[in-house]
Amino acid sequence: MIDSVKKLLIGKALKTEQLKAEKFNIFWGLPILSSDAISSVAYAGQEILYVLIPAVGFMAFADMIHAVLMIIFLLFILVFSYRQVIDCYPNGGGAYIVAQDNLGVTPSLVAAAALCIDYILTVAVSISAGTAAITSAFPNLLPYNVIICVVLILLMTIGNLRGISESAKTFAIPPYIFIGIIIIMIVVGFVKYNIMGIHPKPIYNVPNYTNALSFLVFLKAFAAGCTALTGVEAVSNGIPSFKEPSQKNAKIVLLLLGFVALVLFGGMSYLSAIYKAMYNPDVTVIAQLAMQIFGHGSIMFYAIQAATAIILIMAANTSYNGFPLLLSIIAKDGYVPRQFSKRGSRLGYSNGIIFLSLAAIILLVYFKGDNHSLLPLYAVGVFVSFTLAQTGMVLKWFRHKKGAWRHKAFINGVGAILSCITTIVLGVTKFQEGAWIVCILIPILVYLMSKVKVHYNVVADELKLCCDQKPKKINHEKQKNYMIIPIDSLNKSFLKSYNYAKSFTEDIIIFHVSVDEEATARLLQRWEEYGIDIPIVVKKSPYRSLVGPLVKFIESEEFVIMPGDTITVVMPQFVVKKWWQNILHNQTSLFIKSTLLKRRNIALTTLPYIIND
Amino acid sequence: MIDSVKKLLIGKALKTEQLKAEKFNIFWGLPILSSDAISSVAYAGQEILYVLIPAVGFMAFADMIHAVLMIIFLLFILVFSYRQVIDCYPNGGGAYIVAQDNLGVTPSLVAAAALCIDYILTVAVSISAGTAAITSAFPNLLPYNVIICVVLILLMTIGNLRGISESAKTFAIPPYIFIGIIIIMIVVGFVKYNIMGIHPKPIYNVPNYTNALSFLVFLKAFAAGCTALTGVEAVSNGIPSFKEPSQKNAKIVLLLLGFVALVLFGGMSYLSAIYKAMYNPDVTVIAQLAMQIFGHGSIMFYAIQAATAIILIMAANTSYNGFPLLLSIIAKDGYVPRQFSKRGSRLGYSNGIIFLSLAAIILLVYFKGDNHSLLPLYAVGVFVSFTLAQTGMVLKWFRHKKGAWRHKAFINGVGAILSCITTIVLGVTKFQEGAWIVCILIPILVYLMSKVKVHYNVVADELKLCCDQKPKKINHEKQKNYMIIPIDSLNKSFLKSYNYAKSFTEDIIIFHVSVDEEATARLLQRWEEYGIDIPIVVKKSPYRSLVGPLVKFIESEEFVIMPGDTITVVMPQFVVKKWWQNILHNQTSLFIKSTLLKRRNIALTTLPYIIND
Repeated sequence: MIDSVKKLLIGKALKTEQLKAEKFNIFWGLPILSSDAISSVAYAGQEILYVLIPAVGFMAFADMIHAVLMIIFLLFILVFSYRQVIDCYPNGGGAYIVAQDNLGVTPSLVAAAALCIDYILTVAVSISAGTAAITSAFPNLLPYNVIICVVLILLMTIGNLRGISESAKTFAIPPYIFIGIIIIMIVVGFVKYNIMGIHPKPIYNVPNYTNALSFLVFLKAFAAGCTALTGVEAVSNGIPSFKEPSQKNAKIVLLLLGFVALVLFGGMSYLSAIYKAMYNPDVTVIAQLAMQIFGHGSIMFYAIQAATAIILIMAANTSYNGFPLLLSIIAKDGYVPRQFSKRGSRLGYSNGIIFLSLAAIILLVYFKGDNHSLLPLYAVGVFVSFTLAQTGMVLKWFRHKKGAWRHKAFINGVGAILSCITTIVLGVTKFQEGAWIVCILIPILVYLMSKVKVHYNVVADELKLCCDQKPKKINHEKQKNYMIIPIDSLNKSFLKSYNYAKSFTEDIIIFHVSVDEEATARLLQRWEEYGIDIPIVVKKSPYRSLVGPLVKFIESEEFVIMPGDTITVVMPQFVVKKWWQNILHNQTSLFIKSTLLKRRNIALTTLPYIIND
Repeated sequence: MIDSVKKLLIGKALKTEQLKAEKFNIFWGLPILSSDAISSVAYAGQEILYVLIPAVGFMAFADMIHAVLMIIFLLFILVFSYRQVIDCYPNGGGAYIVAQDNLGVTPSLVAAAALCIDYILTVAVSISAGTAAITSAFPNLLPYNVIICVVLILLMTIGNLRGISESAKTFAIPPYIFIGIIIIMIVVGFVKYNIMGIHPKPIYNVPNYTNALSFLVFLKAFAAGCTALTGVEAVSNGIPSFKEPSQKNAKIVLLLLGFVALVLFGGMSYLSAIYKAMYNPDVTVIAQLAMQIFGHGSIMFYAIQAATAIILIMAANTSYNGFPLLLSIIAKDGYVPRQFSKRGSRLGYSNGIIFLSLAAIILLVYFKGDNHSLLPLYAVGVFVSFTLAQTGMVLKWFRHKKGAWRHKAFINGVGAILSCITTIVLGVTKFQEGAWIVCILIPILVYLMSKVKVHYNVVADELKLCCDQKPKKINHEKQKNYMIIPIDSLNKSFLKSYNYAKSFTEDIIIFHVSVDEEATARLLQRWEEYGIDIPIVVKKSPYRSLVGPLVKFIESEEFVIMPGDTITVVMPQFVVKKWWQNILHNQTSLFIKSTLLKRRNIALTTLPYIIND
């Protein structure tokens, strides 16, 4: 039953050899890898206004432009820094790999933890923003926003478990639509306002006081906008997905990404300034601008909301490509459970996909699907990883000192310093509203990952086989192989166990745990009548435990065992045809198993006994 | 860790021989077995008012007295009917046993289902009423009523898992206090009103219209009050708990129970009538009467609320005695999972106790701890079981025709007819408000119980061993015992499996599932170097499944097996010291096990490999 539901949702299993990645050229690569970065237009700008308007009133719009310019400047620094990463790591250079390569284990784990947190947040933030785009168009849906978020994540989970990435080209169209539609809005908005002189009344009243801008408030606004910079690493991770010359193509895409962000983010900020958009929890800034420029209820209004929702969902989906892959790399290194490195039936890293969905759902439910309360947690992790990656690059140049290394080290150095400053700004200004969670979580995750690695190392050491450890010589004359068969009542399933044991050894012990004296007496009588010539060992169990007396018996002096002897407990297990029938049988063998297996030298043989009902 | 928490909460395990029941005389037996019945004073009366006041206004108080008199009349019929059950079933005669004995399987299952439902409802109803008593005294606690309910149930669960019943005498005191305190209230209330002529203003405005009473409304009021009759069976179930002469003592207690209920239920109804108590969801009728008679905030007011809360919790606790015992009897008959017939570490039927708590918690959470919405579900089940038990008794008298059987058959016959009528009245008048749930649930439960029985019968038949089915003769020359050892990499844990298999048989097959060609090549090379002189069987697994290729290999023609041969798959299982380390190991062996065991003839041997970390 579960199998067929799984097959319906996920599809039939795929063969390993069917694993082949589609390769993109620049035209397809740009939209697919940049949806995370360009989609932040949908929330980054309004977060800046949320900070500025209450603080400086009417002046907010002018100050917003300054903050946005700074953010775009930072973006270009990062673009040029990461172009150098692409040069050096043709197989994809995420912060984890760059840090591991140049800085050592702990920094790489910090980068890994920071990236994992931000991948999860990308899903939560983008999905909640996408839902906000939907509810801005259809306010009736506002009360159901958490449900919409969860349903979207479940759909994405199923899609990614099926293996969405195979048809990635269809994913390239919505970003282009989004880019196009936003550019149209910017142009139309500009023309209407400046050339045709149409100055619509702002939808919400703008406060008509003007305060001086304090430095701290400006930093806060800057930090709020930095969420726009989260998608940069996607390109340098995605190098192997590009057609040859893949590094060159990736570098061009990264540069184009910078320009697209410049146009969209800059243009939208300009529109917000001239049309006096306000932060409103229920109606996004994009929706306000679309209402003013194209009219509420116009086709363009709905088209913009739809394009925004779709690109945000796609931005969430980039995490579904990035996170499971990153986790599989960390898992291969032994810092997280190995299961994350195994491909599922459709060749995706299913455990990573499911983990990502669960974590994002928990976040969305906890924060009630509110984009605004999730954002303070966001971007801190990305900037931690930027800082580590760029610092690693600087060290790399200093170590190798090849070619124009001073020049390159300078670019990465500027990237490292600015990323580091931004990390601090983000951590401090957003600390109270939620960044503290990330600050606590990163060291915890690093600690846990180290613990995991230690365990795997211990296991590997313990299992290591030296070539001089050869199989034991078995002395079949001397060695005894004990097989213990617990008996509850004399029936076919016991007989099966007995026949099985008998075919291996003569040293069979029939063991009965007596809980009920009458039942024991009946068993012993039947045993005598039946006529197997071995006495039953009967042990009373005052506490009604079944495994206790057995373990006690094996460990007692009554049971003489020599080195080299083996002890095997033979237990039948009922195999029923329907799942609910399992409830009807005491799962005693499960308990017995978990207790017995804790003894180094007891093997447990399970014999299936199939019940035909 | 879990073990020590369990020990702390539940206490150390007890030996079976420590199982001894305390025996009560009449003085102790009355309060312990009657708390369910007498506690219904706390809610039955106000439910009658809830029906009557909106319908007939001021006349409600007079009509209430009529309904209560009818209910008390019905109670005495049931008391005399059940006294005859006590005569016939000295080991305790619940409806299940009486119906099984006289009416056959299906009626007994109906009785069982009905009783189980009502035991669960007793807990839910009493706990919610007890919480209402608490919140009537402390209205600040009103918003937390569900939490209070759940905490009370958890405490009772722990108490019963520890084995509360052993100190049952301490349980006799609160009912006496309750009885005493209510009698004092009745007397004081009577004296103040009739003799001292103090007529306080009603707390809530009584509607000053009077309508004629329709028959249907009267039936509804009667049905609402019938919840007072739910505890009668407790006495006839509890005969073995009485000191000798146990039957005689039980009969006296049952009669006394009738009189106590008469005094309390009748007296309280009289008080409600003269003091004009109203139904109010937040302040119980008892609380209103206590306020008027003793004053709000007086010691007596709080004493009455406390005594009410305590006796209601004790009434819930009677289900913890009755339900697990009933379930264990049904389990021994094979109609519910056998696990319900096993005593836990403290000798209570722990599975039944836990099941009862879970079911009651679900009900309370679903109905938001509201006593009033739970009551329509209540009492239907009890009257179904009354009807079946009394009908069974009538048939019994007609079958045996001994002594004054006509007289006795008459009494049980009246009991049966009145119970049957009441069942119909309850079912019909409360159908819409919730009784339909019970009407649907009883047939479903009966169906499920029959299915369970069928399965157990099939299993018993399949396992049955005839005396001519003797152990097989083993021909050690001809028979082969194959041991298949899956290998992933050559390490100590493999060597342990190999040594184990080698001590039993020469027919060892080393089996490797190849998911990754490089890893397979490495393994084969190491295998050659290591020098065990058996070739590894390598099978590719295109779908990355580990157990698929193994099963396919065993079933293929490549693997030749003769009748009488055995196949055993030997698998190591890592045993780790800390629970979280289990997460770090692929639980592949679990998957392999569940798939392999579905084949009739493959045994699975698990070898523990203990990791010291």
